[in-house]
Amino acid sequence: MSTRVDPQPITEDRPTVQIGRSIPRLESLEKVTGETEYIHHLRLPHMLYGKIFRSSVAHGRILKLDTRAARELPGVAAVITGADVCALIPEPYYGPAFHDQPVLAIDKVRYVGEPVAVALSEDPHLAEHAANLIEAEYEELPAVFDEVEAAAATDTFVHDALKPAGTFPDLKHLQGRTKTNVALDFSLRHNDAERGFEQADYIFEHVFRTPAAIHAAMEPIVAVGEPRGSSAVTIHTSSQSPSFVRTEVARLLGWPENHVRVRTAFLGGGFGAKLYIKLEALVAVLALLVKRPVKIALTMEEQFYTITKHATTVRMKSGVTKAGKVVARRCEAWWNGGAYADIGPRVTQKSGFTAAGPYDIENVSLDSYAVYTNLPPAGAFRGFGIPQLVWAYESHTDIIARELELDPLEFRRANILRNGRPQATGTIMRDTATVEVLDTLERAMDWKAPRDPGDGNVRRGRGVAIGFKACIAPTTSVAIVNIYGDGSCAVYCGTVDMGQGSDTAMAQIAAEVLGLDPRAISVIHPDTDVTPYDMATLGSRSTFHMGNAVRLAALDAREKLFIMAGKALGCDPGLLSAAGGCVRAPDGRQLSVGEVIKSGFLMQAGNLIGSGSFRPTYTSPSHGDGQSSDITPFWMVGAVGADVEVDMETGHVRVTRLVSVADVGTVINPAIVTRQLNGGAVMQLGLTMSEALRFDHGQVTNASLADYKIPGILDVPAEIFAEAAPGCQHSGPFGAKGAGETGTFAVSPAIANAIHDATGVRIYDLPLTPEVVYRALRAAQHNPLENEL
Amino acid sequence: MSTRVDPQPITEDRPTVQIGRSIPRLESLEKVTGETEYIHHLRLPHMLYGKIFRSSVAHGRILKLDTRAARELPGVAAVITGADVCALIPEPYYGPAFHDQPVLAIDKVRYVGEPVAVALSEDPHLAEHAANLIEAEYEELPAVFDEVEAAAATDTFVHDALKPAGTFPDLKHLQGRTKTNVALDFSLRHNDAERGFEQADYIFEHVFRTPAAIHAAMEPIVAVGEPRGSSAVTIHTSSQSPSFVRTEVARLLGWPENHVRVRTAFLGGGFGAKLYIKLEALVAVLALLVKRPVKIALTMEEQFYTITKHATTVRMKSGVTKAGKVVARRCEAWWNGGAYADIGPRVTQKSGFTAAGPYDIENVSLDSYAVYTNLPPAGAFRGFGIPQLVWAYESHTDIIARELELDPLEFRRANILRNGRPQATGTIMRDTATVEVLDTLERAMDWKAPRDPGDGNVRRGRGVAIGFKACIAPTTSVAIVNIYGDGSCAVYCGTVDMGQGSDTAMAQIAAEVLGLDPRAISVIHPDTDVTPYDMATLGSRSTFHMGNAVRLAALDAREKLFIMAGKALGCDPGLLSAAGGCVRAPDGRQLSVGEVIKSGFLMQAGNLIGSGSFRPTYTSPSHGDGQSSDITPFWMVGAVGADVEVDMETGHVRVTRLVSVADVGTVINPAIVTRQLNGGAVMQLGLTMSEALRFDHGQVTNASLADYKIPGILDVPAEIFAEAAPGCQHSGPFGAKGAGETGTFAVSPAIANAIHDATGVRIYDLPLTPEVVYRALRAAQHNPLENEL
Repeated sequence: MSTRVDPQPITEDRPTVQIGRSIPRLESLEKVTGETEYIHHLRLPHMLYGKIFRSSVAHGRILKLDTRAARELPGVAAVITGADVCALIPEPYYGPAFHDQPVLAIDKVRYVGEPVAVALSEDPHLAEHAANLIEAEYEELPAVFDEVEAAAATDTFVHDALKPAGTFPDLKHLQGRTKTNVALDFSLRHNDAERGFEQADYIFEHVFRTPAAIHAAMEPIVAVGEPRGSSAVTIHTSSQSPSFVRTEVARLLGWPENHVRVRTAFLGGGFGAKLYIKLEALVAVLALLVKRPVKIALTMEEQFYTITKHATTVRMKSGVTKAGKVVARRCEAWWNGGAYADIGPRVTQKSGFTAAGPYDIENVSLDSYAVYTNLPPAGAFRGFGIPQLVWAYESHTDIIARELELDPLEFRRANILRNGRPQATGTIMRDTATVEVLDTLERAMDWKAPRDPGDGNVRRGRGVAIGFKACIAPTTSVAIVNIYGDGSCAVYCGTVDMGQGSDTAMAQIAAEVLGLDPRAISVIHPDTDVTPYDMATLGSRSTFHMGNAVRLAALDAREKLFIMAGKALGCDPGLLSAAGGCVRAPDGRQLSVGEVIKSGFLMQAGNLIGSGSFRPTYTSPSHGDGQSSDITPFWMVGAVGADVEVDMETGHVRVTRLVSVADVGTVINPAIVTRQLNGGAVMQLGLTMSEALRFDHGQVTNASLADYKIPGILDVPAEIFAEAAPGCQHSGPFGAKGAGETGTFAVSPAIANAIHDATGVRIYDLPLTPEVVYRALRAAQHNPLENEL
Repeated sequence: MSTRVDPQPITEDRPTVQIGRSIPRLESLEKVTGETEYIHHLRLPHMLYGKIFRSSVAHGRILKLDTRAARELPGVAAVITGADVCALIPEPYYGPAFHDQPVLAIDKVRYVGEPVAVALSEDPHLAEHAANLIEAEYEELPAVFDEVEAAAATDTFVHDALKPAGTFPDLKHLQGRTKTNVALDFSLRHNDAERGFEQADYIFEHVFRTPAAIHAAMEPIVAVGEPRGSSAVTIHTSSQSPSFVRTEVARLLGWPENHVRVRTAFLGGGFGAKLYIKLEALVAVLALLVKRPVKIALTMEEQFYTITKHATTVRMKSGVTKAGKVVARRCEAWWNGGAYADIGPRVTQKSGFTAAGPYDIENVSLDSYAVYTNLPPAGAFRGFGIPQLVWAYESHTDIIARELELDPLEFRRANILRNGRPQATGTIMRDTATVEVLDTLERAMDWKAPRDPGDGNVRRGRGVAIGFKACIAPTTSVAIVNIYGDGSCAVYCGTVDMGQGSDTAMAQIAAEVLGLDPRAISVIHPDTDVTPYDMATLGSRSTFHMGNAVRLAALDAREKLFIMAGKALGCDPGLLSAAGGCVRAPDGRQLSVGEVIKSGFLMQAGNLIGSGSFRPTYTSPSHGDGQSSDITPFWMVGAVGADVEVDMETGHVRVTRLVSVADVGTVINPAIVTRQLNGGAVMQLGLTMSEALRFDHGQVTNASLADYKIPGILDVPAEIFAEAAPGCQHSGPFGAKGAGETGTFAVSPAIANAIHDATGVRIYDLPLTPEVVYRALRAAQHNPLENEL
């Protein structure tokens, strides 16, 4: 096993063959013919379906839970409540950051939609009918919904005390803290922001908001628990984090990890919704209680109650000199985490430390608050908080540029954070193509070309924005490469292919090392008993982390292959090369990989097994300490340019062109990367233009895709394209870095900035629905100064 | 990955902790609570059940196959014939030694019961009904049934030409040979047998026979084919040889191995019946043709038509001096292979070269013939031909001893093959406890104690016998040991646990190396995509081969563990030791394995992955070449002593005591080894006393467990025990060698020799049913001289 924890430049001298090739995805044929495996399709013998009975109040004490009618319904196998769960697990609370979320509600409910009981039947419709027969009586308690109000609350608390998970040392000091809804208060000071403001010529200050939203993956959240006796369980789940599920369910049950097997298949989208524990603890507990396999698949409506994107309130304040230099910035961000922390505190912190934006600012003050409210839990969502912050800082930046009558792109370039300079955490920027991204965007947009501002009813405008993001650190990926007896090959890889094309990328990386055709390599999907550990498929970490692990594993296997081939060819292994499915000696003699194995094992038999483990040494910023020198293994940079047309009578905005430019390092598969960037942009377009959860006393009032509008094909801009800026992450596999989220960063402010460019109207809160734009246009007509700032 | 091909002594200096411990089997609780996974229980969504329509003639040309009525039966999904198979695979012939067996009959049938067509339905009963509606018309051809007659036949041939598989170089010369039923004629000459006979004072010559029999595993042969698109397939099968199934099905389909995934679960017994291809090619083809999962589970009756134990005729001739030294031996063995070779030619050859027995004989001549007949195919059966040969040579040896009025045990000891002496192949004996086994048996039997010969109607007698066996060579086993983030651990192992306790033994070996509790180690069952290659679970090879691979993999993982622990403890890794779940420094400081991993990966994450590959360099004796110096990685030696009571009026024989003594090297788990030996002895007791397939023109006439008697609890001797003789296989893991077959070797002749001791009657053909004994007693009364010789 090759282990590497201190990344060194690892790009090779020779030109690559498989890297940079747009080979079709390995699974495409299976997908279009409907043969792809999804957990949603899984049926096991004797399996029961579970339907969840949910809380109808936002905050309340459970006075009575009547399951008799449900239990007595013929065909109902069981009805399980929190009390049953507690009989199996005395403290059944889970969560990646805080152990605050019960498998089923115990004593209290904390949001409308919280799971309270489950009805089980072989017939899912019967289970649903039974769930509808369950009755609960609550003593309603005062509730908090707004993140700023909840943070300041002095008498209404979602939880009695904070229960940090213990896995993050920087949360330990919160243990047992009471009388607060603030799960985490992250702050960072870089030099002295107050002194910076004193030195500035201008001060700008604005507040921006984003609403709660949902991930809306095509495949709903689904999990199947399968008991293996009474001391082992298999969980089949559409999870982005099988390794975490294993560790957490093992912790809940008090079992060693090798008693819990977690496997996934392809995912029909994840976007962060399928991270950590969603249904997995519940189905595992149900399966162990009833001693039968149990499946729960959420309806689309139920997903609105399960996990959301954080609603945010962000206050931005900047001090700027007459020369257009930003010298101080203060940001305060409140994250509406809902009733259970999930990974929210990490969103608060990981995003928090970049809240000043990708700018070289001498004095920075950042405060970021993870806040409990009586709403559905918020968690990871593609971008991990960055789009909410970019919405704030890039709207804010644009306001400043326009106020100072500077070209918005030039203003950004003048203040941009360049390689060699320290970010607010003190980390020196490296391999981060901020300048190249802006340059590429400028060219791609033909930014300086004359524009048609429109006239009369239709006004045209153009906007840009740029965002950046650190990668989660430090995390581990481990991979195995197994060359079989006939020379065919498999990569064992814990990365979950949820549509992002990771299987193909990993096959290309292994193929590059082994001189094989990537289409000949099979990728073994996550199964925690056999595929090695991977922290999770999240935060654009897989290409970099798992890509490095796969590369190391392939190198390990290749070394063994060369030793075996060296014997067969009578040649120093160090002189051999791998190409075209063969191992070649310098004199041109060659053996196919299968022939090498046969020479070593004397028949079509045996394996050559390589393993690789990768963990960068970067450190997470601890509470209140902004001086860690290495905060991330790499930075992602994404910029967007948008052209819009605004209907001045209706407020309807049409995005006519959407251009994404990203620093993804070396591109492994250009077609996949381009689609990732465009896919991210379209997803964020929906969150920009229409998507928002609406609540009435904590009750979601638009919990269906009929009332909650995600982009359809007609919403996609006529002109949409993505481009990778020149870049190379020297510590990445063949120079690559992540690309999964970058497309989302800058879409919202680019469009809002374009609307402002078209209309002179500034909008501070997402989404930019026709009604919002219409009202802003009307307000500006009535009070032009206010909106011009 | 550690690779070792030249075994060196590897027993360690320190005393072992886990080796030699009778820990309960890891799976016992699951088994007694009915929770164990068997493929027989597997149901997949949309799965069809297949029922096989079989030939009713022993040899015939298929004139017409009418499947219309079956196809038109409502609920029948499809009826598949050989023609359909040929549309998918032009040459659908499989087999480990010869590519002679069609997936479904093509043009011809060659035995009664041969699969001709398959009816498929979601309802297995409907599929059976449909199969009964299929009609076939045959042109009957002359058939051959007896192995000696078939070998000599000049006009009736089962196959037109021989088609060796090509995997065994020593079979290549047979390619295309016509007009013969002899698939393989193995011969070996050691010095000059004819000259030896000339030097001898006495010549003895007898012919011994054994009948066809079945394995009668509790779990029937079963397989499920599951298509994954049109270019990949998963086969779930109760197979002893998942790696072979993968290679062979991939070859049939013309696919690389990584398109074929073969997985097994626990097996309810195997005994050789579940090796190579049984239903796997058929269900894979069916699944690909109908694009749905297909399951076929044989009934007990169908297993009589699927795979059998070779019936044999063995002629033994010995030249002996007055001093009681055997100086020459000639053996001829005819193996009734049935209509398809399966692994029969290997049985013929692997057993053939030991046909002279474990004796130090100067001049040896061996001929062994694998013969095609029009009977169900014969294949591997626990003992791999050895019990048939031991029946001959140990009956023969006993006759000689008694004729020369020598103590049978002393006569054997005087002639026994000792370490340092050459076996007939030229291989010098090493680490083989022949003398110790005889000594232990003598003590265990209290052989020299006075005996009660009985009187009147009940006569008592006592017999001994000894046999030996080489292990298949060269073969490969590969293993992975994966230590998870919490320090729990798994062994990935292609060995199939079919009741022999291999999971437990492998866990003990890994635990010994890693200082863990074996009960804390999980063993991952074979899945060819993830568990590494293993040649097969057969021939008592697993403890030695896979045991060595697991040991090497565990050492590889331990090395990584020590490097990580060395950093954490600030200690040279070379000074660390593993014990009690911890890694210990010489100064007594220690960390649990989980703590070491956390120290290295900074959280409960990551893996330490070790892999090990083991292949001894021993060579297989090639045709006609008895001079290979290393024929086997180790020898197994098994002796049995039996006390019997014979009812002189009815011929009924009661075995009152059955003692097994074996050389199994170091014992890993004494309780498991003892049960293996006793289990083997009871299985062979059935084959000795009652089991035999009866045929009428090729039709099995007793194809049910009502008519074919296997031992019940009342047939087990009142006194039965097993003992391991002192021994150590220095090249084995901690000194161990195989124990799966040894208990079967010597049971039959020990009992026959005891019957002779009791009655003076010698029986030459198995089984020793009351009728056979009765007839022999009556014949002896009428013609005493004939039977006394």
